[in-house]
Amino acid sequence: MKTSRGAKTIVYPTPVFIVGTYDDAGKPNLMAAAWGGICCSRPPCVSVSLRKATYTYGNIVTRGAFTVNIASEQYVKEADYVGLVSGRDVDKFAAAGLTPVKSELVDAPYVAEFPMALECKLLHTLEIGLHTLFVGEILDIKADADVFDADGKLSVQKVRPILWAPDDGGYYGVGEYLGPAFEIGKAIKGK
Amino acid sequence: MKTSRGAKTIVYPTPVFIVGTYDDAGKPNLMAAAWGGICCSRPPCVSVSLRKATYTYGNIVTRGAFTVNIASEQYVKEADYVGLVSGRDVDKFAAAGLTPVKSELVDAPYVAEFPMALECKLLHTLEIGLHTLFVGEILDIKADADVFDADGKLSVQKVRPILWAPDDGGYYGVGEYLGPAFEIGKAIKGK
Repeated sequence: MKTSRGAKTIVYPTPVFIVGTYDDAGKPNLMAAAWGGICCSRPPCVSVSLRKATYTYGNIVTRGAFTVNIASEQYVKEADYVGLVSGRDVDKFAAAGLTPVKSELVDAPYVAEFPMALECKLLHTLEIGLHTLFVGEILDIKADADVFDADGKLSVQKVRPILWAPDDGGYYGVGEYLGPAFEIGKAIKGK
Repeated sequence: MKTSRGAKTIVYPTPVFIVGTYDDAGKPNLMAAAWGGICCSRPPCVSVSLRKATYTYGNIVTRGAFTVNIASEQYVKEADYVGLVSGRDVDKFAAAGLTPVKSELVDAPYVAEFPMALECKLLHTLEIGLHTLFVGEILDIKADADVFDADGKLSVQKVRPILWAPDDGGYYGVGEYLGPAFEIGKAIKGK
């Protein structure tokens, strides 16, 4: 017997996407977005949902591009910080001690210090309500050499991403390995 | 200096949403969807992106509703299983030993054994490419009494959700607490 928690925005896990953009004047900006995720395999796309009030919203509309940066655990303070202040008032890269790298593929910067970044071209805009959902086509992923495994794939245990827990209110790391996807369910399939 | 990983669908963390629907005949079905996340705060909405080829796709279009169930770690095999087979061929609830509960709010079933479920009414449909993004308005969240904390909020450490790591290929649990959101970045803000 389940209890109601109400009509709330709670799912687990929720990501902490650090969205990189340029403003009109070319100043690089960052914000933290928890509403988003991969939304298509072909073309490869990721969505982020933002309020119109954010500085990043206007930057994405103007530039037609953004990056999704994944902060590692050691940068949890910086990831939180870029969600606390507005790029209208502050140069968040400078304040957080982070380095913008201009993408060669899209008109947006990514974070040198974070282990990986998705370079995205704006493809769709869907007005939902308080938030607008932006769909970006992923043109490339850039990652540090030390987060690849021996097979040339990215390793979540090397990236050590942050996740946010709505309602709960905390940031968490990635935990124990539970098993291989598209494999461990075969025990039931074979029954 | 970062290296290219190509135009791929990799972000961390990625959820394992177990999507519950009814088919034309009223048979309850489940599938695993990794592409999705909260996409609006007002109205509270969650998105899931599905291929047209899935049985769930037609069910959502016909019924205009779905649930997003969060499996706990102990159900990782069941979560994987429902992504391996089609509801066209199998009664996945029965095969996995799971119990469908008819939502009183939307025309979709949720999973009795999983700790929490979002009851969603279809609000928007966005064709992107191989995947179609469905936006569902969250009408309520139902959760087991033992995943609430003392303040009446949901606790991620009690829910113990599964996350999937694209490229890496594994399922993982939620790890170490890293600090309070909207708080630990204030150390930088105050500088």
